[in-house]
Amino acid sequence: MSPQGPVIRSIPEGDDRERLVCGDCGFVLYENPKVIVGAVCTWDGKYLLCRRAIEPRLGYWTMPVGYMELNETTEQGALREVWEEAQARARIDALLAIYSIPEISQVHMIYRAPMTGPDFAAGPESLEVALFAWEDIPWDDLAYPNVRWSLEYEREMRGKSGFAPRGRPDRE
Amino acid sequence: MSPQGPVIRSIPEGDDRERLVCGDCGFVLYENPKVIVGAVCTWDGKYLLCRRAIEPRLGYWTMPVGYMELNETTEQGALREVWEEAQARARIDALLAIYSIPEISQVHMIYRAPMTGPDFAAGPESLEVALFAWEDIPWDDLAYPNVRWSLEYEREMRGKSGFAPRGRPDRE
Ligand SMILES: [Zn+2]
Ligand SMILES: [Zn+2]
Repeated sequence: MSPQGPVIRSIPEGDDRERLVCGDCGFVLYENPKVIVGAVCTWDGKYLLCRRAIEPRLGYWTMPVGYMELNETTEQGALREVWEEAQARARIDALLAIYSIPEISQVHMIYRAPMTGPDFAAGPESLEVALFAWEDIPWDDLAYPNVRWSLEYEREMRGKSGFAPRGRPDRE
Repeated sequence: MSPQGPVIRSIPEGDDRERLVCGDCGFVLYENPKVIVGAVCTWDGKYLLCRRAIEPRLGYWTMPVGYMELNETTEQGALREVWEEAQARARIDALLAIYSIPEISQVHMIYRAPMTGPDFAAGPESLEVALFAWEDIPWDDLAYPNVRWSLEYEREMRGKSGFAPRGRPDRE
């Protein structure tokens, strides 16, 4: 039987918020918001998108994006995701956007990262990877609203630098 | 006896990295980087600083800053810290800086947040709170290098908007 782990909500002594406590061993889990890092990558004016091979939103298209890991910078995390999901190399150019999603305690940090070579391929979490001209982007099959927001802001900021990262356009 | 919790390093089945596993109940802890949020607050050209009442760096000065909590945006977290540590009200104006510290898996997001009134007081984690003119800032008694970096960048960007957040000046 797999362990239940910390699943009981209670306020530990000396604390002021509910935390998750393990009913088997008493361990208190201090949950924290999670950072998601990703990149809008381009080559020759076209956009690098991955079709998701995993749930949620299996079969839908996204820029390379995923959970930041321990012992990396946000920029390193974004480039790691570009490699893992799209087997492509890129360089960080600017921070395009920061999207807080407090309902699920996530902070998304999306970079602009031009590819440094033409190669790409589907990584283990992608069904396929492709470069799309703007007018060919599969707008109706994007995995999340923030994929569209990020692509649109990349296009708006093309050629510009030193700009502030965009927040959520649906909360402005 | 307090629980050991997940302290054994091993690679769970189907995973590709070492995680922390509990020797008592088998729970696997997926650790993630932590987000620290804070703000450089000003009133009448003076800077709001708190003298830390807790370790680490007890007795040293910092802007209001702390761990982002669940179910808040980064901006809400920064303003919550301003309230908790300095009992002051402010409004978010710009993102000043993002500091990744991969050695300890932290991402710091520091905002520019002018105070919306003159009141402040020491919160439970502060020994004292004060407004300092630039030339009176206790430079030799700041808690961390990023306090200085943030104050300096706030001053450099005074009156400007729409700028990119600064990274770590020691890694540029
Ligand atoms: Zn347990
Ligand atoms: Zn346990």
